[in-house]
Amino acid sequence: MVNVGILGATGMVGQRFIERLGDHPQFELTALTASKRSAGKKYEDAATWYLDSKIPEVAEDVVVVDTDPNEVKDVDIVFSALPADIAAVVEPQFAEAGMIVASNASAMRMEPDVPLVIPEINPEHLELVEIQQKNRGWEGFIVTNPNCSTIALAMTLKPLYDHYNIERVYVSTMQAVSGAGYSGVPSMAIVDNLVPFIGEEEEKMELETLHLLGDFDGESVTPASFGVSTSCHRVAVLDGHTEAVFIEMEDEFEVDDIKNSFAEFRGLPQKLGLYSAPKNPVIVREEDNRPQPRMDRNAERGMAVSVGRIRKDEVFDRSFKYVLVGHNTIRGAAGASILNAELINEIM
Amino acid sequence: MVNVGILGATGMVGQRFIERLGDHPQFELTALTASKRSAGKKYEDAATWYLDSKIPEVAEDVVVVDTDPNEVKDVDIVFSALPADIAAVVEPQFAEAGMIVASNASAMRMEPDVPLVIPEINPEHLELVEIQQKNRGWEGFIVTNPNCSTIALAMTLKPLYDHYNIERVYVSTMQAVSGAGYSGVPSMAIVDNLVPFIGEEEEKMELETLHLLGDFDGESVTPASFGVSTSCHRVAVLDGHTEAVFIEMEDEFEVDDIKNSFAEFRGLPQKLGLYSAPKNPVIVREEDNRPQPRMDRNAERGMAVSVGRIRKDEVFDRSFKYVLVGHNTIRGAAGASILNAELINEIM
Amino acid sequence: MVNVGILGATGMVGQRFIERLGDHPQFELTALTASKRSAGKKYEDAATWYLDSKIPEVAEDVVVVDTDPNEVKDVDIVFSALPADIAAVVEPQFAEAGMIVASNASAMRMEPDVPLVIPEINPEHLELVEIQQKNRGWEGFIVTNPNCSTIALAMTLKPLYDHYNIERVYVSTMQAVSGAGYSGVPSMAIVDNLVPFIGEEEEKMELETLHLLGDFDGESVTPASFGVSTSCHRVAVLDGHTEAVFIEMEDEFEVDDIKNSFAEFRGLPQKLGLYSAPKNPVIVREEDNRPQPRMDRNAERGMAVSVGRIRKDEVFDRSFKYVLVGHNTIRGAAGASILNAELINEIM
Amino acid sequence: MVNVGILGATGMVGQRFIERLGDHPQFELTALTASKRSAGKKYEDAATWYLDSKIPEVAEDVVVVDTDPNEVKDVDIVFSALPADIAAVVEPQFAEAGMIVASNASAMRMEPDVPLVIPEINPEHLELVEIQQKNRGWEGFIVTNPNCSTIALAMTLKPLYDHYNIERVYVSTMQAVSGAGYSGVPSMAIVDNLVPFIGEEEEKMELETLHLLGDFDGESVTPASFGVSTSCHRVAVLDGHTEAVFIEMEDEFEVDDIKNSFAEFRGLPQKLGLYSAPKNPVIVREEDNRPQPRMDRNAERGMAVSVGRIRKDEVFDRSFKYVLVGHNTIRGAAGASILNAELINEIM
Repeated sequence: MVNVGILGATGMVGQRFIERLGDHPQFELTALTASKRSAGKKYEDAATWYLDSKIPEVAEDVVVVDTDPNEVKDVDIVFSALPADIAAVVEPQFAEAGMIVASNASAMRMEPDVPLVIPEINPEHLELVEIQQKNRGWEGFIVTNPNCSTIALAMTLKPLYDHYNIERVYVSTMQAVSGAGYSGVPSMAIVDNLVPFIGEEEEKMELETLHLLGDFDGESVTPASFGVSTSCHRVAVLDGHTEAVFIEMEDEFEVDDIKNSFAEFRGLPQKLGLYSAPKNPVIVREEDNRPQPRMDRNAERGMAVSVGRIRKDEVFDRSFKYVLVGHNTIRGAAGASILNAELINEIM
Repeated sequence: MVNVGILGATGMVGQRFIERLGDHPQFELTALTASKRSAGKKYEDAATWYLDSKIPEVAEDVVVVDTDPNEVKDVDIVFSALPADIAAVVEPQFAEAGMIVASNASAMRMEPDVPLVIPEINPEHLELVEIQQKNRGWEGFIVTNPNCSTIALAMTLKPLYDHYNIERVYVSTMQAVSGAGYSGVPSMAIVDNLVPFIGEEEEKMELETLHLLGDFDGESVTPASFGVSTSCHRVAVLDGHTEAVFIEMEDEFEVDDIKNSFAEFRGLPQKLGLYSAPKNPVIVREEDNRPQPRMDRNAERGMAVSVGRIRKDEVFDRSFKYVLVGHNTIRGAAGASILNAELINEIM
Repeated sequence: MVNVGILGATGMVGQRFIERLGDHPQFELTALTASKRSAGKKYEDAATWYLDSKIPEVAEDVVVVDTDPNEVKDVDIVFSALPADIAAVVEPQFAEAGMIVASNASAMRMEPDVPLVIPEINPEHLELVEIQQKNRGWEGFIVTNPNCSTIALAMTLKPLYDHYNIERVYVSTMQAVSGAGYSGVPSMAIVDNLVPFIGEEEEKMELETLHLLGDFDGESVTPASFGVSTSCHRVAVLDGHTEAVFIEMEDEFEVDDIKNSFAEFRGLPQKLGLYSAPKNPVIVREEDNRPQPRMDRNAERGMAVSVGRIRKDEVFDRSFKYVLVGHNTIRGAAGASILNAELINEIM
Repeated sequence: MVNVGILGATGMVGQRFIERLGDHPQFELTALTASKRSAGKKYEDAATWYLDSKIPEVAEDVVVVDTDPNEVKDVDIVFSALPADIAAVVEPQFAEAGMIVASNASAMRMEPDVPLVIPEINPEHLELVEIQQKNRGWEGFIVTNPNCSTIALAMTLKPLYDHYNIERVYVSTMQAVSGAGYSGVPSMAIVDNLVPFIGEEEEKMELETLHLLGDFDGESVTPASFGVSTSCHRVAVLDGHTEAVFIEMEDEFEVDDIKNSFAEFRGLPQKLGLYSAPKNPVIVREEDNRPQPRMDRNAERGMAVSVGRIRKDEVFDRSFKYVLVGHNTIRGAAGASILNAELINEIM
């Protein structure tokens, strides 16, 4: 068993980490950090548990410590659910102290020597770790996963990108409130309403998606060269981001082949049989009115992305459209970091 | 005063007609029709009033009659809130009987001799009426307005189309549940959820928008020649459709000029000062997170469309994006038909 | 294994029956009935699956038959999720044909020779079966469970009734929309709203609760003699009924003793270790703001009732208050009928 | 015109004050206060406007000042929408400085020399002002209105109390999220959920209701002597508190007489024709399923309380039940304070 800890364990994503590490076959949850205010308390006293599952027993009695590498002993991997500004300061300290940091925070994602990885998409980017350690003189290292809405999108673009030349992608999102944290979206803002704006989300999607699909030449990543334009919106859904995707290809295609590309897609986690890996990373739904967030977010324990309404665009040439749903705090956050750690644990 | 009636007066859109005709300065509400089951009852007994306003006094005691031109006496204009299949049969009967039918139903919209009109956009299409009457030997005639999500979109495309060559348009909608009628969307389908499909909506938007912006040469309408591709979704909002719009132009432009085109847009109803005409048909919002359906749907008594987040597309050349909100059962339905009737009443 | 069928298998409660019988250790699901329209189709084609679980494999390929005992072969127990009016006609036919009918319908609940049973509360009422069979000349028989909101309430009154003399009970409910069936509550009725009325619900709660706690003297049931007055309301919650309960006792008590009565309550299903029996039928929550429907409805696979805010009434003597949450379509419907059948299977 | 100001003008209730004072015939809005952070900014820059109306023109350009009597010049009446802890310190300073403080805050409500007043219920309690000024040596004075859920309840108890001897009252509330302020209830807490707890709300309702209906003997108020026991819950409604009320009388009564007491109730504001006074303070609805918060909260510009489901309690003697809806931030907050000020302006 590998000892693991969670940085920022009391928030929304921190709780998802705990939920999924409570009975993990390879990872033993031994450390939980939070702000100074919570340090010294047992986890069950420090946190208000927001999920409808129970707090895993392994976490209940863990005494929360300050988010400081000196407080986190005998831990090999830390998962980071920290806010970006704190992550920028603290994650390097943990890497310097020799730990592997599997981070869901955005702070380090775009550093040229920090891998931004989804195991099904670009596991080879992990080779950046060596460069990172050399550059920075760290014993440990940082590996990151993308933003929640990016992950769901990229999971569906990867099988296409493997078979086709993509010309351009337009994406309009309908994102769940949990993405903003437990108190991020007041009920007054969202009941009988929606909010057509999420700070920095569009920029992240447009940049990170191409980075994930980019080429690694042993030194650095060259982003994929097609275009992704996004519009991001918050709707009255608890969990599960929905995205309407319009794609123009460079060449002709058959819609059935597109569907097959989705349905048959398998990546390295599937080959290696990693514990958190979904059997089918992309699930194709044939019903008229699916995927829907409440119905499909938990597919494959929340680790698969569901796509539906795959249809030819009757208006534009070489174009088609689909709708996807992915669980934003599982596949799009905690589950993504854990899958990264499982891959690292297996191959590095 | 012109005597008017409402066909299908008990449903969601029927009630919006009544609400807005209750104190209309030119139209006197004298006839209400519904299914046979309701015929013979006073309106307040026949209908369950769904709106949070009161039933206008003028309607309360009107005795509902069957939807049959023989039952509707001394009426000049009938507004149709009928389902498409019934409208297809009944609206021609009313036109034949000499009445003007201002219809919100989709049945007759694509008939080549039936005007599909938004007064701010294509009032000249009303000249089709003469052809229609000649073709069909009717004393009355039918004029239609488009689908709710089409109207809001077209209101924002018109000022652009007047100044620019549009290349293509992608639209992703987040539509209110009232668009499906009072019982159309079960709460089990939409609480903590969304439904990424609305039957025939995408087809209507893609076709009707270009028809509205099309050229009328005195004989027939030639649709505008750019492309509109749509993806339609239902969200947990009561009233007010939101649409994320991505536009590619043929030529370069300044975003500020786009904003001005919206803000300065005025049409014939504004010039004529029609009673239901909004002063500003398109309202530009500068806040980061507007327009929002609950906050903006009632702008200008529900007759204006609000646009915001007007921004350059940093990814694609000659492209920009915006978000719009329009009230689906007012500007997008009852209010649209009434404005058509006001225009007809004024100029024909 | 006992062969079982479901009458009315395509609706909301029918689906909960299927979900819970998919992997039942004693019951083999072999027959599904629905209206004539569905008969002849495979279940997965006949039903739109509303739950966020998958259709159990055992049900997918079952060919749905008409709700007629002649169509249901080699089945020992049928679970009824029929509407009351149909149940009134059909359930006796199945009992006459020799089957055990475990019914969630209200039709037969108040027949003096039909047991209305919750296994934790009044298993001894099952002795009415003999009288029923004699009276009616049936080989099979009917056993019923109460209305959903009654069950949750009665589960919490039973441990009190065992230890105290209850004087009166006031209950105000906040009930989930699933209780009205999938299409029962339009979203237009409940978004940013609540509906303070549920047809016949108050009457059922006031009558059935006392019947469940009533004495069976070998011949008939004499209802408990205290009073239960209710006010029932529908709120924007998918699953899980919440009830605010005010109780006046005949004598003084300690609140801690009340809590213990709840926490220590065990019934016959717990003693017998029935498959669907919750370990703790009544779970006591100590947090200020629990139970909450989304957080607590699934406690013990949806079969436990959670109570919280147990507090002395500072205004009225010998009085206290609490709030309860129970899953309305599991503990309050399908799960209740299945637990009845498990008990019958074990002891009769 | 009387010059008025608002203390705490940027919050939820502060905005309702502004909305209703924007075109008030007697009150001229000249001062707005907020926290230091907002001081010095124009109101439209200092506040995020939450209401779906526009900011009244009169307020847009007012420069916000610190909540300090030295900053508020030439103002006769200040309305207080301050949090209780700040109100406790600041309201006395404004009274000392000679201003009339019409407060919605709870801080001073239970001071024996501070009137807690609803003009329809206990205008005579205003005579406490003289005692207050004498006690405290103030030129100005403080008058308060009760908590939002108390007001709606008390408005319906007053007509009963005038005609009957009430024995006891049980109330279960379903309260709107706006009652907690704009950010008070996260969407994660209330979508597909409810929260069965509101801090200190039950205590306020139980105490303030009896105080409002209490006798003033020229010196002090003796609370009414019947009992009110409450259970308070937060539901997914934006505005409008709903309350289920169970009442036991001391004597027999006819339900029709109860209805008449409600319908015919008029108070001093109605007699005086005060500007904000509803014509019918209590509106009786006869439909099965009314009142509903979205449909009835705005009755009489949000100043009337709607009651429905008035029915005999078939279980308990001399008992009946009803459901009420009142707008919590209008009748229950800003509108209540303004009506108090109108009454003071008229009679003192």
